[in-house]
Amino acid sequence: MKLLIIGAVILAATTTMAPAQEIPKTAAELGIMQGSPPERTINMAEWDKGPDNRWAFQHISEIIPVANISRGSGPATPLQVSPNDLSELMFKSYDGNAMSVQNMLTQTYTDGFIVLHEGDVVYEKYFNSMTPNTRHLLMSVSKSLTGTLAGMLVHDGRLNPDAMVTDYLPELKDSPAFGNATVRQVLDMTTALVFSEDYADPNAEVVAHEGATAWRGESAEGAQDGVYFFANTIEKEEARPHGQQFQYASINTDVLGWLIERASGQRFSEFMSDKIWSKLGADHDGQISVDYKGSAVANGGFVLTLRDLARFSQMVLDDGYYNDQQIVPSGWLDDTRFNGNNDAWKPTHYHDTWPNGFYRNQWYVTGDDNGTFFAVGVNGQHIWINPTSRVAIVKYSSLPLSADKENITLGWAAMDAISRSFTD
Amino acid sequence: MKLLIIGAVILAATTTMAPAQEIPKTAAELGIMQGSPPERTINMAEWDKGPDNRWAFQHISEIIPVANISRGSGPATPLQVSPNDLSELMFKSYDGNAMSVQNMLTQTYTDGFIVLHEGDVVYEKYFNSMTPNTRHLLMSVSKSLTGTLAGMLVHDGRLNPDAMVTDYLPELKDSPAFGNATVRQVLDMTTALVFSEDYADPNAEVVAHEGATAWRGESAEGAQDGVYFFANTIEKEEARPHGQQFQYASINTDVLGWLIERASGQRFSEFMSDKIWSKLGADHDGQISVDYKGSAVANGGFVLTLRDLARFSQMVLDDGYYNDQQIVPSGWLDDTRFNGNNDAWKPTHYHDTWPNGFYRNQWYVTGDDNGTFFAVGVNGQHIWINPTSRVAIVKYSSLPLSADKENITLGWAAMDAISRSFTD
Repeated sequence: MKLLIIGAVILAATTTMAPAQEIPKTAAELGIMQGSPPERTINMAEWDKGPDNRWAFQHISEIIPVANISRGSGPATPLQVSPNDLSELMFKSYDGNAMSVQNMLTQTYTDGFIVLHEGDVVYEKYFNSMTPNTRHLLMSVSKSLTGTLAGMLVHDGRLNPDAMVTDYLPELKDSPAFGNATVRQVLDMTTALVFSEDYADPNAEVVAHEGATAWRGESAEGAQDGVYFFANTIEKEEARPHGQQFQYASINTDVLGWLIERASGQRFSEFMSDKIWSKLGADHDGQISVDYKGSAVANGGFVLTLRDLARFSQMVLDDGYYNDQQIVPSGWLDDTRFNGNNDAWKPTHYHDTWPNGFYRNQWYVTGDDNGTFFAVGVNGQHIWINPTSRVAIVKYSSLPLSADKENITLGWAAMDAISRSFTD
Repeated sequence: MKLLIIGAVILAATTTMAPAQEIPKTAAELGIMQGSPPERTINMAEWDKGPDNRWAFQHISEIIPVANISRGSGPATPLQVSPNDLSELMFKSYDGNAMSVQNMLTQTYTDGFIVLHEGDVVYEKYFNSMTPNTRHLLMSVSKSLTGTLAGMLVHDGRLNPDAMVTDYLPELKDSPAFGNATVRQVLDMTTALVFSEDYADPNAEVVAHEGATAWRGESAEGAQDGVYFFANTIEKEEARPHGQQFQYASINTDVLGWLIERASGQRFSEFMSDKIWSKLGADHDGQISVDYKGSAVANGGFVLTLRDLARFSQMVLDDGYYNDQQIVPSGWLDDTRFNGNNDAWKPTHYHDTWPNGFYRNQWYVTGDDNGTFFAVGVNGQHIWINPTSRVAIVKYSSLPLSADKENITLGWAAMDAISRSFTD
């Protein structure tokens, strides 16, 4: 085995081999949804946790309502393949242990993994029955797609980041949380909300949020009222004003989705299709989770194939240009990458890892020496973009826990190392 | 207006112009699912009836669970276009009145209509916001696709039509209805069942059937048990033996779907993809409605674009050959078209219209002088195939009533007249 150690930015000083881990079982090996009819079916209360999510993330339309995002009827944009087997590439994890990319992929319950360099597919792996034609849930990677979509409306002058949310959504005028927030604060998640994202706490707002999105079925509390009604129930965090601190709260992105629908006059799925998906040369239609009123779950509900999300990521890497056209305005992506507020980021734990970073337009911007920025979702979903080495990576996973910090950061270290290996 | 009267086979002697009808409103005009969030949403108790179905039939994945039927990754089979405007073509309805094709399409709540002649698209119309990229519910046209799929297993020797259903599905050994039925009886719907298809009767078996399929939501009676469990609850009609009479009962097709899963060892959606959909050169993935256990609703749950169902229909017209390959065995389609039992058909009302017809392998075979055969579903879904004039037609509709005999037979008269116009 060739031991090529690629240094990620943030590494401990010593390097030891990571201990061997048990290989995660596939949905088929676990007997989930096997047989006719299957004995072991999916539980609506926990389909997005392990082990049900091993099957569920690749079969979302069987579990929750989804709206179609049409790819249109043009040809798919060809993806050139320039193979570069990264399986044995060694990297140092944040805990200082050395690990191969292959072992990382296995340990982190990977379903699909693709690396583009200069737009060519250099490495592409599928696990757990996933194929190039399988759609997979993006979880909060969806937020970065939603933020990018919002940019189309800002560019067209139809959505003003400096306006009040209520200028577009008078329904929120009495909302404690959003009644006096700006669009910019929603875009950058600097609203000050009483909103816990602790999935393990049954009283956390994110749990009620799931009920409102249709993710817990028809009879869950709030399911029939929908996600926009739920947005109106959120309380303001009185300890600080809006605009001061980055606070990750998913409901912001659903309000952004609502703003997109109102400003565009279209359903979220239709606007996404018209402005991005039909121009990208995608292989497949996409899908977006919708609540029982048909409103998009913009914060976490995109369902896309690996290659199609790679195309989107390459477009973002190429400043909005893809398939021979400028799809997303260059100015919006520059704004995303360069205009964030590091002060708002400082009080958060991200600052420990990326002291120069910020959160802007629903993307994490690291502020590192490569200009790396990324999207991340629970259970191990990622887009990783390194503009210096011209690498874009997508990783789909079905980690058992929503917030498995160890395995999620392991993915970051690997993707950072892979990206940097192309500058050597 | 050019008055070209094309004679359909079964016409009254006199011809008068049909009275003008009110033009059906579109979903958008009715305000269904318009606005953000929409005020007028879809009611789970009646989404498949008018007016909700004007929107619902084109947004099935937002309403009920669907499994994906992958098109694979090959190129789409080109559809050549040879325009022939049939809008003003006049035909005589079964009531003897003359009507233009265009007026028929309007009156019968058409969403999509396509006519292929010698495989070329000669006429293609969309209404009510439908597009070439929109999937639409097939209702019982699904049965004919399911029957065709079963033929692949018969040809491979994996499903024996003369065997007992219980040879494959021992779970049904105590079923009063299916415990002593053969696969052939299920295929040709000559099982003798206590099964009413009267959608207007709340006590009809078809209403309980809908509950079992997930079409009425999670809390409907039988929803959590699923469609295969429901099959086990059906009673035998004691007044006659199996095999004697054609009796249209949708549950037969779901049992056939179960047989397909058991004999193939695959999920219905995967077997359909492997054997037909990935070989057809479809534009789009298809979908099939699944119950809350993931079992296919084979009797009515296919969701496909108009052009893709036209490709399937052309394949059937061409004896199973399409996209440069024999997809469905020729022998199965010959068996379907020529080996039916007219005696079993005689006691039914279909005999009045087509005295030489029969129902075979889930297709209606008219026995007319053109060898016409067809598939039909409630609310106005159709495949119409005329092997003599080499015409295949698909019609999608959203008629308000499930069983609107007048408008459904109006479609038949029109499609018969259109088909025959190509032999002149």
